[in-house]
Amino acid sequence: MERRYLILAPHVFATRAAKTAHGVIAYSNDVTVAVVDPSNAGRSVRDVLPHLDSDAPIVDSVEAGLAYDPTSLLVGIAPAGGVLPEAFRAEISVALRAGLEVVSGLHTILGDDAEFAELAKAHDSRIWDLRLPPAAPLFSGAAYDIETPILLMVGSDCAVGKMTAALELARAANERGVPAVFVPTGQTGIAIAGWGTSVDRVVADFAPGAAEQLVLEGERRVNDLPGAADGAPALLVVEGQGAINHPAYAPVTLSLLYGSAPDALVLVHIPSRRVIDGYDIPLLGYRELIRTYETLCAGIKPAKVVAIALNTRDLGESEARAAIAEAAAQTALPCDDVVRFGPHALYDALAPRLAKTAALHA
Amino acid sequence: MERRYLILAPHVFATRAAKTAHGVIAYSNDVTVAVVDPSNAGRSVRDVLPHLDSDAPIVDSVEAGLAYDPTSLLVGIAPAGGVLPEAFRAEISVALRAGLEVVSGLHTILGDDAEFAELAKAHDSRIWDLRLPPAAPLFSGAAYDIETPILLMVGSDCAVGKMTAALELARAANERGVPAVFVPTGQTGIAIAGWGTSVDRVVADFAPGAAEQLVLEGERRVNDLPGAADGAPALLVVEGQGAINHPAYAPVTLSLLYGSAPDALVLVHIPSRRVIDGYDIPLLGYRELIRTYETLCAGIKPAKVVAIALNTRDLGESEARAAIAEAAAQTALPCDDVVRFGPHALYDALAPRLAKTAALHA
Repeated sequence: MERRYLILAPHVFATRAAKTAHGVIAYSNDVTVAVVDPSNAGRSVRDVLPHLDSDAPIVDSVEAGLAYDPTSLLVGIAPAGGVLPEAFRAEISVALRAGLEVVSGLHTILGDDAEFAELAKAHDSRIWDLRLPPAAPLFSGAAYDIETPILLMVGSDCAVGKMTAALELARAANERGVPAVFVPTGQTGIAIAGWGTSVDRVVADFAPGAAEQLVLEGERRVNDLPGAADGAPALLVVEGQGAINHPAYAPVTLSLLYGSAPDALVLVHIPSRRVIDGYDIPLLGYRELIRTYETLCAGIKPAKVVAIALNTRDLGESEARAAIAEAAAQTALPCDDVVRFGPHALYDALAPRLAKTAALHA
Repeated sequence: MERRYLILAPHVFATRAAKTAHGVIAYSNDVTVAVVDPSNAGRSVRDVLPHLDSDAPIVDSVEAGLAYDPTSLLVGIAPAGGVLPEAFRAEISVALRAGLEVVSGLHTILGDDAEFAELAKAHDSRIWDLRLPPAAPLFSGAAYDIETPILLMVGSDCAVGKMTAALELARAANERGVPAVFVPTGQTGIAIAGWGTSVDRVVADFAPGAAEQLVLEGERRVNDLPGAADGAPALLVVEGQGAINHPAYAPVTLSLLYGSAPDALVLVHIPSRRVIDGYDIPLLGYRELIRTYETLCAGIKPAKVVAIALNTRDLGESEARAAIAEAAAQTALPCDDVVRFGPHALYDALAPRLAKTAALHA
């Protein structure tokens, strides 16, 4: 279906807590017609977050947002732990009563909530819980036979821009004539692409198996793209999750590192970030991160870090260029900010390295 | 309750597939009155597996096992993927009809099976799904404040003897007068100890949080033991899971490595094992394993491997002694087979290293 989103992000739209809202506005093919945030009501998305490049109005309630004819209410936050804030209940109920579809990426499964389920039924609306995973099998090794090169984003922390880097690099590949599929592994990616599995929601024993199913599905999708042909270059770009030294999310990071069977890795980082978000744990440096990710892969299916994608949004342009030069100097790898400076330069720099690693596994 | 187990392991009791059966017979305080395995009916457990030191008879059916007055039927297998074999359904139904409790560590939740749930209700019996986890919070860091030293088993593969090593080392500590608690992290450990969480069954995002809750509970339990006193030595010994280069189970391994916040690690290995069980992936060597586990911990809460526990059951005694000497020479660490030669020598060798690492975090 074609969606017209009303996005619920009360009092947090301008903050990192609303990363699902920001991702969908920036990258979804579905249009965002309005955002609910009483703190910014009366302004536009562009007024608050210019980089999102959207003139959608910000309103103070779901009731007010109905005037913009939405089809769907998107719960636009991604809090640690993924619990539904109590304050959201009333607004979600208003949406369901108005017959809107409700789309949520929380760990709280809204479809399991008796009140919401009843409202949805009574008003012929539906609930799409992005995070509810399909049953996953154990990792089988079938992913090792995928012929299309698999590029996985790995990070220095959560919420540094791994999904964005994956979307931008997949776009660059397609624009260069290489059929590429973005493989969504988390709730925002699923909302954007319309398919995928939130690997962090899968039972731990089956999380690598879920990642494997995603790249198998990505392989089917890439073969269906216009321009796909036997032996012609193509690409799977897998959204990463967490970081290998994140005390809570690293098992999900590792599930993707092993389960998606990457041929190559892109390291994503925010240069100003110093500690793991929410924990008193220092971020690892570039070289430590690269060594750790590559060492873990080496024992199973070797994959090298082939590029570094920095998120420099909080820096001025000269600082950003300095940070990029510093990362490139420390690692001898191509490095860029794929949002600020576009993804093509980094894609062009990493593509030859990808062909090489892919050939190693042919 | 005091249980009298009838153990269901048809046609696999003598094999590794029955590791839950073997663990419970060897280590549970509950008695095993009989084992169901038509392939070995008429023999005793000792006839088939002398090291289990049990005279329980082996019978050909649950019906025949009822003569030994069991209170509970234990599903004695731990297959990859944890699915209930169809062939087990009829035998489980016989047990429920006879009013037996049914205890299962499968991923298939027997209590969710309509037929079993109805039988249990009709015959006033119950189903204990060992693997069904409690709701776990996100990892919080509270485990970093635990004062009792935490010793975690890490492995070269799954099913190498991590649970056994943990049980033996906890026993040795208690026998040396150091109050110690075995912290169960998998279904067999839970059946043996009567508490715990099967971390592999927890939703991936919350698996480190589940491990953290287990050591917090372990700390409460160790403080309740006779001999526990402020400032006196005590010990938590955490059952490990999987291996860091296991393509399916490593995320669970990492959940324990981070979530249980260990002060020190014991590496467990079967010297004759060459590849990851069920996959075409070579086992890492001692030094690679130690480096990988220690490197991952180093970025969060440093912990060193302080000893190596080998499982040499498939070797003759001189080969076993040679394997132990070889591991010790390669790693400069104390090394022993805690089942074959008893746990006291290894415990005595690692205890001083533990005190030292614990002091580092005091």
